[in-house]
Amino acid sequence: MSKMVVSLNENSYPIYIEHHLLSHLSEYLDSNRRYVIIADDGIPRKWVDLVSSQIPDGEVLRFAQGEASKSFDTFAALMTQLAELKLTRKDCLIALGGGVTGDLCGFLAACYMRGIDYIQIPTTVLSQVDSSVGGKTAIDVGTMKNLCGAFWQPEAVFIDPEVLSTLDPRQISAGLAEALKMGIVFDESLLEEFEKEKPDFDRIIERSIDLKRQIVQEDEKEGGRRKLLNFGHTIGHAIEASFPEHDYLHGECVGMGMLYFIEDEELKKRVAGILKSLNLPEIPDYDKEAVKEYMKHDKKSLVGGIDAIYVSRIGHPEIRMTDFDTLCGFIDNPPIVK
Amino acid sequence: MSKMVVSLNENSYPIYIEHHLLSHLSEYLDSNRRYVIIADDGIPRKWVDLVSSQIPDGEVLRFAQGEASKSFDTFAALMTQLAELKLTRKDCLIALGGGVTGDLCGFLAACYMRGIDYIQIPTTVLSQVDSSVGGKTAIDVGTMKNLCGAFWQPEAVFIDPEVLSTLDPRQISAGLAEALKMGIVFDESLLEEFEKEKPDFDRIIERSIDLKRQIVQEDEKEGGRRKLLNFGHTIGHAIEASFPEHDYLHGECVGMGMLYFIEDEELKKRVAGILKSLNLPEIPDYDKEAVKEYMKHDKKSLVGGIDAIYVSRIGHPEIRMTDFDTLCGFIDNPPIVK
Repeated sequence: MSKMVVSLNENSYPIYIEHHLLSHLSEYLDSNRRYVIIADDGIPRKWVDLVSSQIPDGEVLRFAQGEASKSFDTFAALMTQLAELKLTRKDCLIALGGGVTGDLCGFLAACYMRGIDYIQIPTTVLSQVDSSVGGKTAIDVGTMKNLCGAFWQPEAVFIDPEVLSTLDPRQISAGLAEALKMGIVFDESLLEEFEKEKPDFDRIIERSIDLKRQIVQEDEKEGGRRKLLNFGHTIGHAIEASFPEHDYLHGECVGMGMLYFIEDEELKKRVAGILKSLNLPEIPDYDKEAVKEYMKHDKKSLVGGIDAIYVSRIGHPEIRMTDFDTLCGFIDNPPIVK
Repeated sequence: MSKMVVSLNENSYPIYIEHHLLSHLSEYLDSNRRYVIIADDGIPRKWVDLVSSQIPDGEVLRFAQGEASKSFDTFAALMTQLAELKLTRKDCLIALGGGVTGDLCGFLAACYMRGIDYIQIPTTVLSQVDSSVGGKTAIDVGTMKNLCGAFWQPEAVFIDPEVLSTLDPRQISAGLAEALKMGIVFDESLLEEFEKEKPDFDRIIERSIDLKRQIVQEDEKEGGRRKLLNFGHTIGHAIEASFPEHDYLHGECVGMGMLYFIEDEELKKRVAGILKSLNLPEIPDYDKEAVKEYMKHDKKSLVGGIDAIYVSRIGHPEIRMTDFDTLCGFIDNPPIVK
């Protein structure tokens, strides 16, 4: 059992990490409070039943799996259901699922009656090591990802590595790409863990969460240092968006997206080796014009360029304003690892 | 010229009150920043042109006048337009209009890219004395008013009493009902101003804003004392909702709604006299069952009852949990002033 605290004054909250934590989740909940579980229809029934068994009258609201649910339509439908359940300002939502669920449920909590509590129970590697900590919530507007959202910190994060037992290995690998990102940007020992013959994935997840926690503490609203977490996302995100949904997973694209911005050939080689060991795909066949077009419309676009993150050597990230032409050059010439 | 400050630590902001303030608004704006004006199609062109003339490239986004625009549809359409304008996190919205505009624009600012700045320029008495100060923003969900929103403080509030010159007298009276509310709940001298032969309406507005400012400072998120501002709203709001839109104005219903909860006959008489002097209507013909039905579904409903505000004598408000049956009794027996 491990407990960390994200220290953000009145918005501080604990992160609990433990195998089989969900089997005794009720110990951490307030028996006098109403909880509503928000989960998509893709998460195994097993986990929904386990969590809801820990809550008296634990209501569950389901929505369709996938990024398309981060829409005004799904958001409005869920909000209406919360009102129909007569949920009050004192009650609490539970985001049980991956990144989409956390983003959607978190934004619901941020807005319902101008803000209620919510708890994160991330069930994918990606959401465990990244999105469940830090309070970034959002929905998409048309093709613009995360355009509408809020910084709204959860009341607690519960991480039970057991939930990964039902996860598609491809999803696991994609999530580990975000953990690898933390290693490249902040911590060589984390990177080295990936290079071991038998990496300790529990340790990788826990260390990644701890690094994320520290960054969020330093820069809750992403005014500065937190932007470093976008390493690999600038082009990765655009590649992801240029394909039909599910063709490539977010973490897969981030994995590849990092290689463009590693400026040390030796490190690039190490990272490429790890990506390969994780069975993460190379994505050579993307539509270059579509990727550029998406980048142009990406919400982070600023007049004159984009804040892109470069890593010259492990633990030495740097934010550099990069103009659109330079990025187009990157896109035209996918990274080649010799 | 009067300047007050709402002190909320990093969310503090000034309120400027001055006749003809809008004619030199540019002095208060940052010439290196982009501003987008959000206004409905009901506000006189004169004021939109005046404000936009103070802003280089001042873009204006219009939407249809009325509460119906506090919808997901209008919200999503405006957010898409902001993205098309490539507005960034550093830019700023301007809410130019009444309460609907302030609520909608404020919530847009709260959510666009997870939060950008906005400025309130309220153009009705109601929004000047009440909704423009305090950062309560929201849209409606179906019939549920303000169900989806955020506490998101503006960067500044600019109040130019000149804008009231184009306002319908009925709108002015309705807005003054909210100012009268402040007097009943907090300040006898404000109430007395209304009873003068020639009330000083500038003074009434300024004093109301100052009282609102103080309450917001004490209780930004409406956890306690700020609830007192709901005086008159519990039944008033439900009556308003029971009529087709525009049959009665919000302030008119609040005016009437206060009488139910004044427990001193003498004070009730004084208030009724003031309401009459302001030409505020009596609303005797409401559909009692519809009002009850609305109240049942109101977002503030709590299991067991509603926090209602009572005033036993001027400046002595009290929050009392009131059960639904008691409220139904009130609704069945509209206040009679002897």
